[in-house]
Amino acid sequence: MTGTAIERLRERLAEVHDLSRAAMLLTWDERVMMPPNGAQARAEALGTVSKLAQERFIDVDVGRLLDELRDVEESSDPDSFEASLIRVTRRRYEKATRVPPELVGEMRRASALGLSAYGPAKAASDFESMRPYLERSLELRQRYVECFPPADEKYDILLDDYEPEMKTAEVRRIFDELKDELRPLIEEIADAGDIDDSFLTGEFDPATQRRVALEIAHAFGYDEREWRLDPTLHPFMSSPGAGDLRLTTNFRPNDLTSLFATMHEFGHGVYEWGVDRALARTPLGTGVSLGVHESQSRTWENLVGRSRAFWRWFYPRLQGAFPAQLGSIDEESFYRAVNKVQPSLIRIDADEVTYNLHIILRFELEQELIEGRLAVADLPEAWNARMKEYLGIDVPDDARGVLQDMHWSGGSLGYFPTYALGNVMSVQIWERAVGDLGDLDDRFERGEFGELREWLREHLYKLGAKFTPQETIERVTGNHIDAKPYLRYLREKLAPQMA
Amino acid sequence: MTGTAIERLRERLAEVHDLSRAAMLLTWDERVMMPPNGAQARAEALGTVSKLAQERFIDVDVGRLLDELRDVEESSDPDSFEASLIRVTRRRYEKATRVPPELVGEMRRASALGLSAYGPAKAASDFESMRPYLERSLELRQRYVECFPPADEKYDILLDDYEPEMKTAEVRRIFDELKDELRPLIEEIADAGDIDDSFLTGEFDPATQRRVALEIAHAFGYDEREWRLDPTLHPFMSSPGAGDLRLTTNFRPNDLTSLFATMHEFGHGVYEWGVDRALARTPLGTGVSLGVHESQSRTWENLVGRSRAFWRWFYPRLQGAFPAQLGSIDEESFYRAVNKVQPSLIRIDADEVTYNLHIILRFELEQELIEGRLAVADLPEAWNARMKEYLGIDVPDDARGVLQDMHWSGGSLGYFPTYALGNVMSVQIWERAVGDLGDLDDRFERGEFGELREWLREHLYKLGAKFTPQETIERVTGNHIDAKPYLRYLREKLAPQMA
Repeated sequence: MTGTAIERLRERLAEVHDLSRAAMLLTWDERVMMPPNGAQARAEALGTVSKLAQERFIDVDVGRLLDELRDVEESSDPDSFEASLIRVTRRRYEKATRVPPELVGEMRRASALGLSAYGPAKAASDFESMRPYLERSLELRQRYVECFPPADEKYDILLDDYEPEMKTAEVRRIFDELKDELRPLIEEIADAGDIDDSFLTGEFDPATQRRVALEIAHAFGYDEREWRLDPTLHPFMSSPGAGDLRLTTNFRPNDLTSLFATMHEFGHGVYEWGVDRALARTPLGTGVSLGVHESQSRTWENLVGRSRAFWRWFYPRLQGAFPAQLGSIDEESFYRAVNKVQPSLIRIDADEVTYNLHIILRFELEQELIEGRLAVADLPEAWNARMKEYLGIDVPDDARGVLQDMHWSGGSLGYFPTYALGNVMSVQIWERAVGDLGDLDDRFERGEFGELREWLREHLYKLGAKFTPQETIERVTGNHIDAKPYLRYLREKLAPQMA
Repeated sequence: MTGTAIERLRERLAEVHDLSRAAMLLTWDERVMMPPNGAQARAEALGTVSKLAQERFIDVDVGRLLDELRDVEESSDPDSFEASLIRVTRRRYEKATRVPPELVGEMRRASALGLSAYGPAKAASDFESMRPYLERSLELRQRYVECFPPADEKYDILLDDYEPEMKTAEVRRIFDELKDELRPLIEEIADAGDIDDSFLTGEFDPATQRRVALEIAHAFGYDEREWRLDPTLHPFMSSPGAGDLRLTTNFRPNDLTSLFATMHEFGHGVYEWGVDRALARTPLGTGVSLGVHESQSRTWENLVGRSRAFWRWFYPRLQGAFPAQLGSIDEESFYRAVNKVQPSLIRIDADEVTYNLHIILRFELEQELIEGRLAVADLPEAWNARMKEYLGIDVPDDARGVLQDMHWSGGSLGYFPTYALGNVMSVQIWERAVGDLGDLDDRFERGEFGELREWLREHLYKLGAKFTPQETIERVTGNHIDAKPYLRYLREKLAPQMA
C-alpha cells in the first residue's frame, strides 16, 4: 500500500466495507429471492465473506496504522472526518481483534442455516425443529462473550454490538420506568371499553396494497432510481451500497399491516439514505446504532404514519383504493382503529403501548439464556408464562409465541431492546424537530413530508456513525436518553381512549 | 491450516469459490434487481471481491500445496477427483499468478461500470457515450495479454479464458468451413422464396409468456426449489451456488422470443444443475468451458425447442395461451416460421444458420481490436461494413448494430466464438445421445424430456470441469470438435425450405 497512513487506512476499511456489503446482499437475496435449495451454498458463501471481512479488519496492518495515526487523532478537531474515523475504527478494532475470524465465520454460517430453518419451523409451529439451531447459536454467543474481559453483566457484551456503550443496567432502568407506567395505562385503556377495528381485517388485494404502500413511500421520499420494495416473510430494510435502499414488507391478503411495515422500513431506509455520502465505504457511513435506527423507523411508522394529520391527507386515497372495505368507515373511526391499544400475541402487529412489553419480555428472557438461567428447551414455557404475566395473553402455539420472530433463529441476542430504546428516542428527536419546524400537522395534511425528512437528514442522518449513539442523541436533542417525553406522548395521544 | 495437503488445498479453493459466487450474485443482482443509482457502490464491491478472490488464489501457499501434491497427482488415476483437482488447479494457478490482483480488480470494476452504462447507451443508440468504457476495457485487455508469454496470436490468450487450450487458428479453420458452407446455403434458401412468419409479431401479453415459458421449463426439469426465472434486458443464466439456478429472459410484449431465450438459458442452467455435487466448491464444480456450455443452451433451444416433435407436443398449448394470435395458424406453418432462415440485424433473434455469421463477424473484429488494427472509434463503421458483406444487411443505427450486445461493454473479448463452437459441438453430442437412446421424437411429442436430460447429465454434465473441453467432448462423442455433423444437420433440417 502507498499513500499517507490515513489513505491506507481508508483503503483497507473500504475493502472491509465492500465485503460486508456483499454479505448484506447475500443475506437480502437469501430472504427475498433465493430458491430454498440454495441455502447450504449460501451459508458457506456468507461464512467465507464474513470471515474474510473480519480477517482483513483485524490484520496487524490496521493496528499499526491506528498506532501511527494517534497523533493525527489527537491533533485534529474531534468532529473532523479524520479524528472520527480513527476514533471509531480504534474502538471497533479493539473489540474485533478479540474475536477469532473462525468464530465470526461460524456464527455467520450458523445464522444463515438457522434463518433458512426458521420459515418451515414457523409454518409447522415446530419449536423442536428449531431447537438445535437455537442451542448452537447460544453456544456460539457464549463463546463470543468469553472473548471479552468480564463485564458488569454478560449481556452488556451482546448489547454493545447493537447499541455501543449502552449498559444492561441502564436499559433495565429505562424499561422498569416503561413497565411501571405502561402496565397501569394498558389497564386504564382496557377499562374504558372496546374500539371497533373489525374493518381492518378482511380482503385486501396484495397488488393494491403494494400500489398504496408505494404511493405513501413516494410522498415520504422514495425514488425508483435508489429504492426497491419487495415482499418477504418478515419485513426488513437492507442497503447493500450507497444509492441502493431496499425495503421489504409482507403484503398479507387479509389486513393492512403492510402499509405500516412499509413506513417502518422506509424510516430505516431514509436514515441510511441521508448519511453524508462523503462517509461512504468507511465505518462512519451508516446509521450509528440499532436503537437510533429504530427511532427513525418508529418515527415514520408511528409519529408520522399513525398521526391524525397523516390520515387526514391519506385516508380518502386509501378509501379510494379499497372502497368496498372502507367506503362506509369515517376517518375518525379509522384513525382510532389504527391506534387501538389492546394486548395481543404478535409483536410486529402490536400497538404503540403494548409493543414495549413484548420487548421487555424478550430482553428478560435473553438475559436468562445468556447467563445460563434458562435452557433453550424451556424457552416456550417461559415465553408463555411471561406473556400471561405481562399482557394477560394465552399463547395458543409456538408459531404465534416463541417462534413469531426470526431474530433468535439468526442468533441475534441483545438486539431486541434496541426496539424499545428506539421508541423512547424517537419522541425526544421528534420534539426537537417540532421545536424547530413548528407544528407539522398542516404540512402532513397536504401530504408534505419533505421538511421533516430534510430536518432529520440535516440534524441526525448525515452524522452517520461519527459519534457514539449517546453523543449523537445529545447533539440532536440536547439531552441524554430519557423515557419521559415518550410516556408523555403516549398519554396525550391515548387520552381519548381513556375518556 | 491443518489437515492433509489435499484438504488444505480444498479449503483454500472453497474460499476462492465462495468469493467468486458472491461476485456472481453481485452481478446477477446488478442486472436484475439493483436500483440504478447503486451502480457505483456495486462496481466497488465487485472490484474488491474479485481482487480478494484473485489474491487468495494466487497466494504462495497455493503454489506450495501444488508442489507438495505433485506426487499425489502422479500416483493417482488421472480420472480421480484428486488428480483432476490438482491438474486443473495447477493450470489455472499458473495462468492466474501472471496477473496482478490490482489488474483483476480494475477489470472487474471497469466491467461493472461499462455494463451499467450499456443500458442507457443502447436505449439512446449512443455509441459515443459507450466509447470511453470500451476503450478502457480494451486497454485493460491489452495489459492482460501482456501478462503472458507471447502466443501464436494475441487473441489466443483471450480465447483461452473461455475455451481453455483452444487456439485462434483452430477456431478460424472451423469458422472458415462454416462460412464456406453457410453462405451458399443462405443464398439457396433465399432463392427458394419467403416463408410467412408475420404471426410471430403482434401483441403477446408478457405475463402469459412467462406462464408459458415456465410450463416448458418445468417439462424440461425446472423446479421452484432450485430455480428462478426473472425478466432482464439481455437474457443470461447465473448460478450463485449449488442448488441455485437463475434464468433470466426478456418478455418482449410484441413477439415470442422469450420462449426460445428461456429454453436457451435453461440449457445453461441444467448443465450447472447436473454437475456432480461432490465437485462443489472446487474449480471442477462447474461447466468446463463456454463453448461446451453453449452446446447445451443451443441443444435445448434449437435441437429440442425448434424441433417438429417438440411443437407437436406444445403447439396446441401455445395456441391455447394465445388463441387470438395463433388460433388460425396450423402447426406446420408455425414450425416453419420458427425455423425460418433469413439474414437479420440482431444476433440473439437470428435463425440457426445466419447466427454463425453474426459470430464470425464479431470474432474477426475482436482480433482486429486486440491486435490494434482497428480503433474503438472506428468500430461502428467496421461493424456496418461487415454486416453488409456477410449478411447483405444495412444497419440503421448502433442500437441495432454494434451496441446490440452487452458483452463488449463488460469487457468480454474472446467470448463470442464460443457461441458458434457451441453450435458445432451440440450436434456432435446430440448424435451420440440419439445413438444411445434411439429416436427421441415420440418422447418429445408426449412432452417427455427426462431421458435426454438424464443422458446428458450422466455423460456430460456430471463431469464438470474435471477434463479439458476437448477431452470432455472426446469422452462424450468419441471425436474431436468437428463442424460436419452440424452442417449436415442444418442441410437436412432445412431441405424443405430449399425445395
